[in-house]
Amino acid sequence: MTGLPDTSSSRGVAVVIGLGSMGMGMALSLKKAGFDVLGADVSADAVARFVQAGGRAISKLAEDVKQADVVVSVVVNAAQTEGVLFGADGIADSMKPGSGFISSATMDPAIARKLAAQLEAKGVHYLDAPISGGAARAAKGELTVMASGSPAAFAAARAALDAMATKVYELGDAAGQGAAFKMINQLLAGVHIAAACEAITFAAKQGLDLDKVYEVITASAGNSWMFENRIPHVLAGDYTPLSAIEIFVKDLGIIQDMALSERYPVPLSAAALQMYLAASGAGMGRDDDSSLARIYAQLSGAKLPERAE
Amino acid sequence: MTGLPDTSSSRGVAVVIGLGSMGMGMALSLKKAGFDVLGADVSADAVARFVQAGGRAISKLAEDVKQADVVVSVVVNAAQTEGVLFGADGIADSMKPGSGFISSATMDPAIARKLAAQLEAKGVHYLDAPISGGAARAAKGELTVMASGSPAAFAAARAALDAMATKVYELGDAAGQGAAFKMINQLLAGVHIAAACEAITFAAKQGLDLDKVYEVITASAGNSWMFENRIPHVLAGDYTPLSAIEIFVKDLGIIQDMALSERYPVPLSAAALQMYLAASGAGMGRDDDSSLARIYAQLSGAKLPERAE
Repeated sequence: MTGLPDTSSSRGVAVVIGLGSMGMGMALSLKKAGFDVLGADVSADAVARFVQAGGRAISKLAEDVKQADVVVSVVVNAAQTEGVLFGADGIADSMKPGSGFISSATMDPAIARKLAAQLEAKGVHYLDAPISGGAARAAKGELTVMASGSPAAFAAARAALDAMATKVYELGDAAGQGAAFKMINQLLAGVHIAAACEAITFAAKQGLDLDKVYEVITASAGNSWMFENRIPHVLAGDYTPLSAIEIFVKDLGIIQDMALSERYPVPLSAAALQMYLAASGAGMGRDDDSSLARIYAQLSGAKLPERAE
Repeated sequence: MTGLPDTSSSRGVAVVIGLGSMGMGMALSLKKAGFDVLGADVSADAVARFVQAGGRAISKLAEDVKQADVVVSVVVNAAQTEGVLFGADGIADSMKPGSGFISSATMDPAIARKLAAQLEAKGVHYLDAPISGGAARAAKGELTVMASGSPAAFAAARAALDAMATKVYELGDAAGQGAAFKMINQLLAGVHIAAACEAITFAAKQGLDLDKVYEVITASAGNSWMFENRIPHVLAGDYTPLSAIEIFVKDLGIIQDMALSERYPVPLSAAALQMYLAASGAGMGRDDDSSLARIYAQLSGAKLPERAE
């Protein structure tokens, strides 16, 4: 019965576009909260996993989206978000007037403002709603959302937000502000990972006991959320991607674009971006972002811990 | 009776060299713990304040130090430490063999190793013991010490350390390791302050609500100890120095020296140092280190909060 509403549902119909590690968890959180959820992804495997978990597959997006009360877009970037809305098979013209579009991709605030204006011209409410919290919290409906949009956009999105997030920051009454807050967070996160890797590998170069460095720094004024979270990967020599180098190639790239456009110098972010580019260029783009430590080690001869077999 | 031991004391005689905001607190903590404490400073005012608080003034350092069981050096840098020990009026030749020298200045580990070797050749134990925690914790005897040195150096320093600190990390059996840990912390702290100022002023440039930015970031993955601690100064527009720009001109300068000598690239630290140099060059060297935000604002036209009158 793909494509037809599940009449046992009481919360309305939600379409989730993008069933990656975040989108899958968000789709299942919506389902758990009583939404009738249809999922779409370019990967047939991802859709199959969603169906196996009890979700319904989109059959034809531009058709199925007509019944949606809310669409949650959990794609990678601004270009994909624009494609979802206004591309060749875009949904902007099919969405119900008065329904809500929740845009979760991290993007330049200027683009969020542009997309929102284009969609709202069609009577659909755009909520600028970047997320944070990671896959585990997405699966539990415990994300943090940095949201901005019109009161109507918040109203259209409210039930879905409540299902997916424990913390929704309401950051303004227009699209772009949510994106701007998220980019400030990404600037700091990206710089802090690079600083953490610069520091721990410098400690290795000097022959310090790295477990002790971790113990001392996490109890000192040099600590950061990212140092505490990422350096254990370096200590274990395990660069299995929890969050990949390419994420910060993208996000610090957006910071550079914003900085250029705003005429605002960002020397720290610029230096950090070069390290992510080096890691990506060296073939580590899909590895964990703590792989910056391996670049520092390559550039200096420092010896880092190797993964236990 | 300046210069003669106070026979009511049971913990021995301690000489504290440097009665600045940290040294004063450390000297008084030693006194509270039962040491007979003699204090020295180039500033007669500082010495007078110490005497008023119940301490004793050094009359002639090279003489008075002969009775000391432990000397605590709380001067600004390696050059001053070297001057205290081996300068024209240096104390190295006067100190009791078997007594302890606790060196608290932040410095290049290579210099700590050199000073330790020179002093130990005279039979005096050198403890490499940089401190953190700030003036308020110094006054309460609640510092954190990152210490390394021989077992004999730890033994000679133990009672004084216990009086001044609640946490003593024992980081190795040779001078230099304490200094190296401290420098790793300073690298991170210096970069994080610069990143915090880059981010908050970028938020200002975009017209975001800065109090809200502080609320969101301190609850997010972009947080750091320094963001949380320093950004309130920017929000209040109050750059009264709690820790001055020149501290990080010095400490990131040491990082550059170490990096050069170790052939270890530090792009993040290098970018941060340029911002501290800019702030110092612009006349803010003795202002709070959160003044980097004012440099970003000058360079971009961003408007930061002004201090309430």
